[in-house]
Amino acid sequence: MTIKKNYKSAILIIGNEILSGRTQDTNTSTIAIWLNSIGVNVAEVRVIPDVEEIIVDTLNLLRSTYDYVFTTGGIGPTHDDITAQSVSKAFKIKYEVHKEAFKILEAYYKTGEFNEGRQKMAWMPEKAKLILNPTSGAPGFNVGNVFSLPGVPSILKSMLGGLTNIIVGGKPIKSLTISLRTVESEIAKSLTKVQNDNHEVEIGSYPFFHAGKLGVSIVIRSEDQSKIDKCNSQILKFVNEKKIKVVSR
Amino acid sequence: MTIKKNYKSAILIIGNEILSGRTQDTNTSTIAIWLNSIGVNVAEVRVIPDVEEIIVDTLNLLRSTYDYVFTTGGIGPTHDDITAQSVSKAFKIKYEVHKEAFKILEAYYKTGEFNEGRQKMAWMPEKAKLILNPTSGAPGFNVGNVFSLPGVPSILKSMLGGLTNIIVGGKPIKSLTISLRTVESEIAKSLTKVQNDNHEVEIGSYPFFHAGKLGVSIVIRSEDQSKIDKCNSQILKFVNEKKIKVVSR
Repeated sequence: MTIKKNYKSAILIIGNEILSGRTQDTNTSTIAIWLNSIGVNVAEVRVIPDVEEIIVDTLNLLRSTYDYVFTTGGIGPTHDDITAQSVSKAFKIKYEVHKEAFKILEAYYKTGEFNEGRQKMAWMPEKAKLILNPTSGAPGFNVGNVFSLPGVPSILKSMLGGLTNIIVGGKPIKSLTISLRTVESEIAKSLTKVQNDNHEVEIGSYPFFHAGKLGVSIVIRSEDQSKIDKCNSQILKFVNEKKIKVVSR
Repeated sequence: MTIKKNYKSAILIIGNEILSGRTQDTNTSTIAIWLNSIGVNVAEVRVIPDVEEIIVDTLNLLRSTYDYVFTTGGIGPTHDDITAQSVSKAFKIKYEVHKEAFKILEAYYKTGEFNEGRQKMAWMPEKAKLILNPTSGAPGFNVGNVFSLPGVPSILKSMLGGLTNIIVGGKPIKSLTISLRTVESEIAKSLTKVQNDNHEVEIGSYPFFHAGKLGVSIVIRSEDQSKIDKCNSQILKFVNEKKIKVVSR
Protein backbone atom coordinates (compact mmCIF):
# COMPACT_ATOMS: atom_id res chain seq x y z
CA MET A 1 0.00 0.00 0.00
CA THR A 2 2.74 2.45 0.88
CA ILE A 3 5.70 3.29 -1.26
CA LYS A 4 9.15 2.56 0.07
CA LYS A 5 10.63 5.98 0.70
CA ASN A 6 14.07 6.78 1.89
CA TYR A 7 13.47 10.39 2.79
CA LYS A 8 10.62 11.47 5.00
CA SER A 9 9.72 14.93 6.15
CA ALA A 10 7.17 16.80 8.22
CA ILE A 11 5.71 20.24 7.66
CA LEU A 12 5.03 22.30 10.79
CA ILE A 13 2.68 25.20 10.21
CA ILE A 14 2.94 27.74 13.00
CA GLY A 15 0.09 30.19 13.18
CA ASN A 16 -3.11 31.03 15.04
CA GLU A 17 -4.52 32.44 11.81
CA ILE A 18 -4.69 28.94 10.29
CA LEU A 19 -6.23 27.38 13.43
CA SER A 20 -8.89 30.10 13.63
CA GLY A 21 -9.88 29.47 10.02
CA ARG A 22 -9.15 33.06 9.06
CA THR A 23 -6.38 32.07 6.67
CA GLN A 24 -6.34 29.11 4.33
CA ASP A 25 -3.00 27.32 4.35
CA THR A 26 -1.56 26.93 0.86
CA ASN A 27 2.07 26.35 1.84
CA THR A 28 1.60 22.62 2.50
CA SER A 29 0.77 21.98 -1.12
CA THR A 30 3.63 24.19 -2.39
CA ILE A 31 6.22 22.52 -0.18
CA ALA A 32 4.89 18.99 -0.79
CA ILE A 33 4.94 19.29 -4.59
CA TRP A 34 8.49 20.66 -4.46
CA LEU A 35 9.67 17.94 -2.03
CA ASN A 36 8.13 15.16 -4.14
CA SER A 37 10.04 16.49 -7.14
CA ILE A 38 13.33 16.05 -5.28
CA GLY A 39 12.42 12.64 -3.85
CA VAL A 40 11.30 13.56 -0.35
CA ASN A 41 7.97 12.31 0.98
CA VAL A 42 5.79 14.36 3.32
CA ALA A 43 4.75 11.95 6.06
CA GLU A 44 2.81 14.36 8.24
CA VAL A 45 1.68 17.95 8.59
CA ARG A 46 0.84 19.68 11.85
CA VAL A 47 -0.71 23.08 12.45
CA ILE A 48 0.01 24.51 15.90
CA PRO A 49 -0.54 27.87 17.63
CA ASP A 50 1.98 30.66 18.29
CA VAL A 51 2.84 29.25 21.73
CA GLU A 52 6.51 28.73 22.51
CA GLU A 53 6.19 25.59 24.61
CA ILE A 54 4.08 23.86 21.97
CA ILE A 55 6.46 24.87 19.16
CA VAL A 56 9.51 23.63 21.08
CA ASP A 57 7.94 20.28 22.03
CA THR A 58 6.50 19.61 18.57
CA LEU A 59 9.76 20.55 16.84
CA ASN A 60 11.79 18.25 19.07
CA LEU A 61 9.44 15.38 18.36
CA LEU A 62 9.33 15.91 14.60
CA ARG A 63 13.04 16.54 14.09
CA SER A 64 13.90 13.28 15.85
CA THR A 65 11.32 11.37 13.79
CA TYR A 66 11.89 12.64 10.24
CA ASP A 67 14.80 13.39 7.94
CA TYR A 68 13.65 16.97 7.45
CA VAL A 69 11.26 19.38 9.14
CA PHE A 70 9.99 22.48 7.38
CA THR A 71 8.38 25.18 9.48
CA THR A 72 6.28 27.99 8.02
CA GLY A 73 5.31 31.23 9.71
CA GLY A 74 6.39 33.22 12.73
CA ILE A 75 9.61 34.76 11.41
CA GLY A 76 8.38 38.33 10.93
CA PRO A 77 8.94 41.41 13.10
CA THR A 78 5.88 41.35 15.42
CA HIS A 79 5.25 39.97 18.93
CA ASP A 80 3.52 36.83 17.60
CA ASP A 81 6.59 35.88 15.53
CA ILE A 82 8.37 33.49 17.86
CA THR A 83 9.66 30.75 15.59
CA ALA A 84 13.36 31.75 15.73
CA GLN A 85 13.47 31.88 19.53
CA SER A 86 11.52 28.59 19.71
CA VAL A 87 13.93 26.82 17.34
CA SER A 88 16.83 28.10 19.50
CA LYS A 89 15.17 26.67 22.62
CA ALA A 90 14.40 23.36 20.93
CA PHE A 91 18.05 22.94 19.95
CA LYS A 92 19.26 24.51 23.23
CA ILE A 93 21.42 27.02 21.37
CA LYS A 94 21.80 30.77 21.81
CA TYR A 95 19.25 33.17 20.29
CA GLU A 96 21.22 36.16 19.06
CA VAL A 97 21.76 38.66 16.28
CA HIS A 98 22.93 36.82 13.17
CA LYS A 99 25.62 39.03 11.65
CA GLU A 100 25.10 37.94 8.04
CA ALA A 101 21.31 38.31 8.32
CA PHE A 102 21.78 41.73 9.91
CA LYS A 103 23.97 42.85 6.99
CA ILE A 104 21.46 41.58 4.42
CA LEU A 105 18.60 43.40 6.13
CA GLU A 106 20.65 46.56 6.64
CA ALA A 107 21.49 46.63 2.93
CA TYR A 108 17.89 45.88 1.94
CA TYR A 109 16.32 48.78 3.80
CA LYS A 110 17.03 52.44 3.16
CA THR A 111 19.00 54.37 5.77
CA GLY A 112 16.73 55.19 8.66
CA GLU A 113 14.25 52.45 7.78
CA PHE A 114 16.10 49.62 9.47
CA ASN A 115 14.19 50.06 12.71
CA GLU A 116 13.93 47.90 15.83
CA GLY A 117 11.10 45.76 14.40
CA ARG A 118 13.09 44.93 11.30
CA GLN A 119 16.24 44.27 13.33
CA LYS A 120 14.27 41.58 15.19
CA MET A 121 14.27 39.58 11.95
CA ALA A 122 18.07 39.26 12.27
CA TRP A 123 17.71 37.44 15.61
CA MET A 124 18.22 33.74 15.02
CA PRO A 125 19.66 30.59 16.55
CA GLU A 126 23.47 30.90 16.81
CA LYS A 127 25.32 29.79 13.67
CA ALA A 128 22.09 29.16 11.75
CA LYS A 129 22.56 28.80 8.00
CA LEU A 130 20.58 31.40 6.10
CA ILE A 131 17.89 30.60 3.55
CA LEU A 132 18.03 33.54 1.19
CA ASN A 133 14.89 35.49 0.35
CA PRO A 134 14.90 36.94 -3.19
CA THR A 135 11.51 38.58 -2.67
CA SER A 136 11.61 40.67 0.48
CA GLY A 137 15.04 40.62 2.08
CA ALA A 138 14.41 38.87 5.40
CA PRO A 139 16.04 35.43 5.24
CA GLY A 140 14.80 32.14 6.66
CA PHE A 141 17.23 29.86 8.45
CA ASN A 142 18.34 26.28 8.86
CA VAL A 143 19.55 24.52 11.99
CA GLY A 144 20.26 20.78 11.87
CA ASN A 145 17.44 19.19 9.90
CA VAL A 146 14.99 22.04 10.55
CA PHE A 147 14.30 24.62 7.84
CA SER A 148 12.34 27.71 8.87
CA LEU A 149 10.45 29.57 6.18
CA PRO A 150 8.05 32.52 6.25
CA GLY A 151 4.27 32.15 6.20
CA VAL A 152 3.52 34.47 3.28
CA PRO A 153 2.96 32.02 0.37
CA SER A 154 4.56 34.05 -2.45
CA ILE A 155 7.70 34.70 -0.41
CA LEU A 156 7.95 31.09 0.74
CA LYS A 157 7.63 29.92 -2.85
CA SER A 158 10.48 32.18 -3.98
CA MET A 159 12.79 30.70 -1.32
CA LEU A 160 12.41 26.99 -2.11
CA GLY A 161 14.61 27.12 -5.21
CA GLY A 162 17.59 28.02 -3.03
CA LEU A 163 17.06 24.85 -0.98
CA THR A 164 16.87 22.39 -3.86
CA ASN A 165 20.61 21.70 -3.85
CA ILE A 166 20.79 21.51 -0.06
CA ILE A 167 18.06 18.93 0.57
CA VAL A 168 19.23 15.40 -0.21
CA GLY A 169 16.36 13.29 -1.48
CA GLY A 170 15.74 10.03 -3.27
CA LYS A 171 14.26 9.43 -6.67
CA PRO A 172 11.57 11.96 -7.60
CA ILE A 173 8.11 10.68 -6.74
CA LYS A 174 6.11 10.43 -9.96
CA SER A 175 2.39 10.40 -10.30
CA LEU A 176 -0.20 9.75 -12.98
CA THR A 177 -3.82 10.88 -12.81
CA ILE A 178 -6.57 9.15 -14.77
CA SER A 179 -9.88 11.02 -14.68
CA LEU A 180 -12.99 9.00 -15.45
CA ARG A 181 -16.64 9.80 -16.08
CA THR A 182 -17.95 7.46 -13.40
CA VAL A 183 -18.62 7.29 -9.66
CA GLU A 184 -16.34 5.66 -7.10
CA SER A 185 -18.65 2.78 -6.26
CA GLU A 186 -18.63 1.58 -9.89
CA ILE A 187 -14.87 1.02 -9.86
CA ALA A 188 -14.20 0.34 -6.17
CA LYS A 189 -13.93 -3.44 -6.46
CA SER A 190 -11.75 -3.45 -9.60
CA LEU A 191 -9.50 -0.75 -8.19
CA THR A 192 -9.01 -2.71 -4.97
CA LYS A 193 -7.78 -5.63 -7.07
CA VAL A 194 -5.25 -3.41 -8.82
CA GLN A 195 -4.02 -2.05 -5.49
CA ASN A 196 -3.72 -5.54 -4.02
CA ASP A 197 -1.76 -6.61 -7.08
CA ASN A 198 0.60 -3.61 -6.77
CA HIS A 199 1.44 -3.17 -3.10
CA GLU A 200 4.37 -0.85 -3.62
CA VAL A 201 2.36 1.69 -5.55
CA GLU A 202 0.09 4.22 -3.87
CA ILE A 203 -3.31 4.36 -5.59
CA GLY A 204 -5.82 7.00 -4.52
CA SER A 205 -9.37 7.55 -5.70
CA TYR A 206 -10.91 11.03 -5.55
CA PRO A 207 -14.42 11.98 -6.63
CA PHE A 208 -14.81 15.33 -8.39
CA PHE A 209 -17.64 17.49 -9.63
CA HIS A 210 -16.70 19.65 -12.57
CA ALA A 211 -18.80 21.61 -15.07
CA GLY A 212 -21.96 19.96 -13.79
CA LYS A 213 -20.64 16.42 -14.14
CA LEU A 214 -19.47 13.85 -11.63
CA GLY A 215 -16.21 12.01 -12.09
CA VAL A 216 -13.42 10.19 -10.32
CA SER A 217 -9.70 10.87 -10.49
CA ILE A 218 -7.44 7.92 -9.88
CA VAL A 219 -3.96 8.94 -8.79
CA ILE A 220 -1.08 6.46 -9.08
CA ARG A 221 2.15 7.38 -7.26
CA SER A 222 5.53 5.70 -7.23
CA GLU A 223 9.22 6.43 -7.68
CA ASP A 224 9.21 3.77 -10.39
CA GLN A 225 7.64 4.74 -13.74
CA SER A 226 7.34 1.11 -14.87
CA LYS A 227 5.21 0.30 -11.81
CA ILE A 228 2.97 3.27 -12.59
CA ASP A 229 2.68 2.06 -16.18
CA LYS A 230 1.70 -1.43 -15.05
CA CYS A 231 -1.11 -0.07 -12.83
CA ASN A 232 -2.19 2.24 -15.60
CA SER A 233 -2.63 -0.72 -18.01
CA GLN A 234 -4.58 -2.72 -15.44
CA ILE A 235 -6.87 0.23 -14.72
CA LEU A 236 -7.47 1.04 -18.38
CA LYS A 237 -8.34 -2.63 -18.94
CA PHE A 238 -11.25 -2.63 -16.47
CA VAL A 239 -12.26 0.88 -17.53
CA ASN A 240 -12.56 -0.41 -21.09
CA GLU A 241 -14.50 -3.48 -20.05
CA LYS A 242 -16.94 -1.36 -18.05
CA LYS A 243 -17.24 1.09 -20.97
CA ILE A 244 -16.34 4.03 -18.76
CA LYS A 245 -15.28 7.22 -20.51
CA VAL A 246 -11.74 8.45 -19.84
CA VAL A 247 -11.96 12.24 -19.39
CA SER A 248 -8.25 12.91 -19.17
CA ARG A 249 -5.05 11.09 -18.56
CA MET B 1 -1.28 35.63 25.26
CA THR B 2 -3.77 32.79 24.97
CA ILE B 3 -7.46 33.05 25.56
CA LYS B 4 -8.98 30.96 28.32
CA LYS B 5 -10.99 28.35 26.48
CA ASN B 6 -13.13 25.67 27.94
CA TYR B 7 -13.55 23.59 24.83
CA LYS B 8 -10.64 22.44 22.73
CA SER B 9 -10.68 20.34 19.63
CA ALA B 10 -8.38 18.82 17.03
CA ILE B 11 -8.95 18.33 13.33
CA LEU B 12 -7.50 15.16 11.82
CA ILE B 13 -7.22 15.27 8.06
CA ILE B 14 -6.84 11.80 6.62
CA GLY B 15 -5.59 11.66 3.07
CA ASN B 16 -2.54 11.03 0.92
CA GLU B 17 -3.86 13.58 -1.58
CA ILE B 18 -3.22 16.41 0.90
CA LEU B 19 0.25 15.14 1.85
CA SER B 20 1.26 14.83 -1.80
CA GLY B 21 0.22 18.41 -2.45
CA ARG B 22 -2.24 17.33 -5.13
CA THR B 23 -5.23 18.63 -3.20
CA GLN B 24 -5.41 21.82 -1.19
CA ASP B 25 -7.16 21.29 2.15
CA THR B 26 -10.01 23.72 2.68
CA ASN B 27 -11.91 21.78 5.35
CA THR B 28 -9.75 23.07 8.22
CA SER B 29 -10.92 26.60 7.64
CA THR B 30 -14.58 25.55 7.24
CA ILE B 31 -14.59 23.49 10.43
CA ALA B 32 -12.60 26.05 12.44
CA ILE B 33 -14.86 28.98 11.58
CA TRP B 34 -17.94 26.92 12.46
CA LEU B 35 -16.39 25.67 15.74
CA ASN B 36 -15.37 29.18 16.78
CA SER B 37 -18.96 30.31 16.25
CA ILE B 38 -20.15 27.71 18.77
CA GLY B 39 -17.37 28.39 21.28
CA VAL B 40 -14.94 25.59 20.51
CA ASN B 41 -11.29 26.34 19.89
CA VAL B 42 -9.17 24.40 17.40
CA ALA B 43 -5.94 23.64 19.24
CA GLU B 44 -4.22 21.57 16.58
CA VAL B 45 -4.58 20.14 13.10
CA ARG B 46 -2.82 17.06 11.78
CA VAL B 47 -2.66 15.70 8.27
CA ILE B 48 -1.81 11.98 8.09
CA PRO B 49 -1.74 9.33 5.36
CA ASP B 50 -4.31 6.58 4.63
CA VAL B 51 -2.47 4.08 6.84
CA GLU B 52 -4.52 2.25 9.46
CA GLU B 53 -1.91 2.06 12.19
CA ILE B 54 -1.16 5.79 11.95
CA ILE B 55 -4.86 6.69 11.97
CA VAL B 56 -5.54 4.49 15.03
CA ASP B 57 -2.57 5.81 17.02
CA THR B 58 -3.19 9.46 16.17
CA LEU B 59 -6.91 9.18 16.92
CA ASN B 60 -6.26 7.61 20.31
CA LEU B 61 -3.81 10.36 21.22
CA LEU B 62 -6.04 13.21 20.06
CA ARG B 63 -9.29 11.91 21.54
CA SER B 64 -7.68 11.57 24.96
CA THR B 65 -6.19 15.09 24.72
CA TYR B 66 -9.09 17.18 23.41
CA ASP B 67 -12.81 17.59 24.02
CA TYR B 68 -13.61 16.86 20.39
CA VAL B 69 -11.85 15.38 17.39
CA PHE B 70 -13.12 15.92 13.86
CA THR B 71 -11.80 13.66 11.13
CA THR B 72 -12.17 14.42 7.43
CA GLY B 73 -11.77 12.02 4.55
CA GLY B 74 -11.65 8.28 4.05
CA ILE B 75 -15.34 7.41 4.39
CA GLY B 76 -16.11 6.71 0.73
CA PRO B 77 -16.46 3.38 -1.10
CA THR B 78 -12.91 2.71 -2.34
CA HIS B 79 -9.95 0.73 -0.98
CA ASP B 80 -8.21 3.83 0.36
CA ASP B 81 -11.26 4.76 2.49
CA ILE B 82 -10.33 3.21 5.82
CA THR B 83 -11.49 5.77 8.39
CA ALA B 84 -14.50 3.78 9.67
CA GLN B 85 -12.50 0.60 10.27
CA SER B 86 -9.70 2.64 11.88
CA VAL B 87 -12.10 4.42 14.25
CA SER B 88 -13.52 0.99 15.21
CA LYS B 89 -10.01 -0.28 15.99
CA ALA B 90 -9.11 2.84 17.94
CA PHE B 91 -12.18 2.41 20.16
CA LYS B 92 -11.83 -1.40 20.13
CA ILE B 93 -15.43 -1.84 18.97
CA LYS B 94 -16.90 -3.98 16.22
CA TYR B 95 -16.82 -2.81 12.58
CA GLU B 96 -20.12 -3.90 11.05
CA VAL B 97 -23.04 -2.95 8.86
CA HIS B 98 -24.93 -0.06 10.46
CA LYS B 99 -28.61 -0.84 9.91
CA GLU B 100 -29.80 2.76 9.89
CA ALA B 101 -27.01 3.83 7.51
CA PHE B 102 -27.81 0.86 5.27
CA LYS B 103 -31.48 1.91 5.09
CA ILE B 104 -30.57 5.51 4.28
CA LEU B 105 -28.22 4.44 1.49
CA GLU B 106 -30.66 1.85 0.15
CA ALA B 107 -33.39 4.49 -0.07
CA TYR B 108 -31.00 7.02 -1.64
CA TYR B 109 -29.92 4.86 -4.56
CA LYS B 110 -32.24 3.50 -7.25
CA THR B 111 -32.98 -0.22 -7.26
CA GLY B 112 -30.00 -2.06 -8.69
CA GLU B 113 -27.62 0.79 -8.01
CA PHE B 114 -26.93 -0.04 -4.38
CA ASN B 115 -23.89 -2.13 -5.22
CA GLU B 116 -21.12 -3.59 -3.08
CA GLY B 117 -19.01 -0.42 -3.20
CA ARG B 118 -21.88 1.68 -1.93
CA GLN B 119 -22.80 -0.88 0.71
CA LYS B 120 -19.28 -0.46 2.12
CA MET B 121 -20.31 3.04 3.18
CA ALA B 122 -22.80 1.47 5.62
CA TRP B 123 -19.96 -0.31 7.46
CA MET B 124 -19.23 1.61 10.65
CA PRO B 125 -18.21 1.19 14.26
CA GLU B 126 -20.99 -0.63 16.18
CA LYS B 127 -23.67 1.69 17.58
CA ALA B 128 -22.14 4.78 15.97
CA LYS B 129 -24.44 7.79 15.87
CA LEU B 130 -25.03 8.96 12.33
CA ILE B 131 -24.18 12.42 11.03
CA LEU B 132 -26.74 12.99 8.32
CA ASN B 133 -25.68 14.03 4.85
CA PRO B 134 -28.21 16.26 3.08
CA THR B 135 -26.08 16.43 -0.08
CA SER B 136 -25.21 12.92 -1.17
CA GLY B 137 -26.79 10.31 1.07
CA ALA B 138 -23.80 8.63 2.70
CA PRO B 139 -23.76 9.64 6.38
CA GLY B 140 -20.79 10.43 8.59
CA PHE B 141 -20.67 9.02 12.12
CA ASN B 142 -19.87 9.83 15.70
CA VAL B 143 -18.33 7.59 18.35
CA GLY B 144 -17.48 9.06 21.74
CA ASN B 145 -15.89 12.45 21.14
CA VAL B 146 -14.84 11.62 17.57
CA PHE B 147 -16.84 12.94 14.62
CA SER B 148 -16.03 11.51 11.19
CA LEU B 149 -16.87 13.61 8.16
CA PRO B 150 -16.21 13.20 4.44
CA GLY B 151 -13.33 14.87 2.62
CA VAL B 152 -15.31 16.50 -0.18
CA PRO B 153 -15.57 20.15 0.98
CA SER B 154 -19.10 20.92 -0.25
CA ILE B 155 -20.52 17.75 1.33
CA LEU B 156 -18.67 18.31 4.59
CA LYS B 157 -19.99 21.86 4.74
CA SER B 158 -23.57 20.69 4.32
CA MET B 159 -23.22 18.29 7.27
CA LEU B 160 -21.94 20.71 9.93
CA GLY B 161 -25.34 22.31 10.51
CA GLY B 162 -26.66 18.99 11.83
CA LEU B 163 -23.90 18.93 14.45
CA THR B 164 -24.41 22.43 15.84
CA ASN B 165 -26.87 21.27 18.50
CA ILE B 166 -24.81 18.20 19.40
CA ILE B 167 -21.45 19.87 20.07
CA VAL B 168 -21.39 21.61 23.46
CA GLY B 169 -19.19 24.68 23.34
CA GLY B 170 -18.45 27.80 25.34
CA LYS B 171 -19.07 31.40 24.41
CA PRO B 172 -18.59 32.08 20.71
CA ILE B 173 -15.07 33.28 19.95
CA LYS B 174 -15.32 36.75 18.47
CA SER B 175 -12.77 38.50 16.35
CA LEU B 176 -12.13 41.94 14.96
CA THR B 177 -9.81 42.70 12.06
CA ILE B 178 -8.20 46.11 11.59
CA SER B 179 -6.45 46.50 8.24
CA LEU B 180 -3.83 49.21 8.00
CA ARG B 181 -1.82 50.78 5.20
CA THR B 182 1.54 50.13 6.84
CA VAL B 183 4.20 47.45 7.27
CA GLU B 184 4.60 45.22 10.31
CA SER B 185 7.87 46.68 11.50
CA GLU B 186 6.28 50.16 11.85
CA ILE B 187 3.76 48.94 14.40
CA ALA B 188 5.58 45.98 15.97
CA LYS B 189 6.69 47.80 19.13
CA SER B 190 3.33 49.49 19.81
CA LEU B 191 1.43 46.27 19.13
CA THR B 192 3.63 44.34 21.56
CA LYS B 193 2.67 46.88 24.24
CA VAL B 194 -1.03 46.33 23.55
CA GLN B 195 -0.57 42.54 23.69
CA ASN B 196 1.37 42.79 26.98
CA ASP B 197 -1.37 44.97 28.39
CA ASN B 198 -4.08 42.49 27.33
CA HIS B 199 -2.81 39.01 28.08
CA GLU B 200 -6.15 37.25 27.74
CA VAL B 201 -6.74 38.48 24.22
CA GLU B 202 -5.11 36.90 21.19
CA ILE B 203 -3.63 39.52 18.88
CA GLY B 204 -2.20 38.49 15.53
CA SER B 205 -0.46 40.56 12.90
CA TYR B 206 -0.59 39.51 9.23
CA PRO B 207 1.03 41.31 6.32
CA PHE B 208 -0.96 41.40 3.10
CA PHE B 209 -0.42 42.52 -0.46
CA HIS B 210 -3.58 43.60 -2.21
CA ALA B 211 -4.19 45.56 -5.41
CA GLY B 212 -0.52 46.47 -5.60
CA LYS B 213 -0.33 47.83 -2.06
CA LEU B 214 1.21 46.49 1.12
CA GLY B 215 -0.74 46.41 4.35
CA VAL B 216 -1.10 44.71 7.71
CA SER B 217 -4.19 43.12 9.19
CA ILE B 218 -4.36 43.04 12.96
CA VAL B 219 -6.71 40.36 14.24
CA ILE B 220 -8.03 40.58 17.82
CA ARG B 221 -9.71 37.44 19.20
CA SER B 222 -11.54 36.87 22.45
CA GLU B 223 -14.79 35.48 23.83
CA ASP B 224 -15.28 38.85 25.52
CA GLN B 225 -16.36 41.73 23.27
CA SER B 226 -15.38 44.37 25.84
CA LYS B 227 -11.80 43.07 25.84
CA ILE B 228 -11.73 43.26 22.05
CA ASP B 229 -13.06 46.82 22.23
CA LYS B 230 -10.37 47.81 24.72
CA CYS B 231 -7.59 46.51 22.45
CA ASN B 232 -9.22 48.15 19.49
CA SER B 233 -9.11 51.57 21.21
CA GLN B 234 -5.49 51.13 22.19
CA ILE B 235 -4.54 50.11 18.66
CA LEU B 236 -6.46 52.96 17.02
CA LYS B 237 -4.72 55.35 19.41
CA PHE B 238 -1.21 54.48 18.22
CA VAL B 239 -2.40 54.20 14.63
CA ASN B 240 -3.68 57.76 14.87
CA GLU B 241 -0.49 59.02 16.48
CA LYS B 242 1.60 57.40 13.74
CA LYS B 243 -0.76 58.83 11.07
CA ILE B 244 -1.30 55.37 9.59
CA LYS B 245 -4.29 54.99 7.27
CA VAL B 246 -6.99 52.53 8.38
CA VAL B 247 -8.03 50.57 5.26
CA SER B 248 -10.90 48.66 6.83
CA ARG B 249 -12.21 47.74 10.20
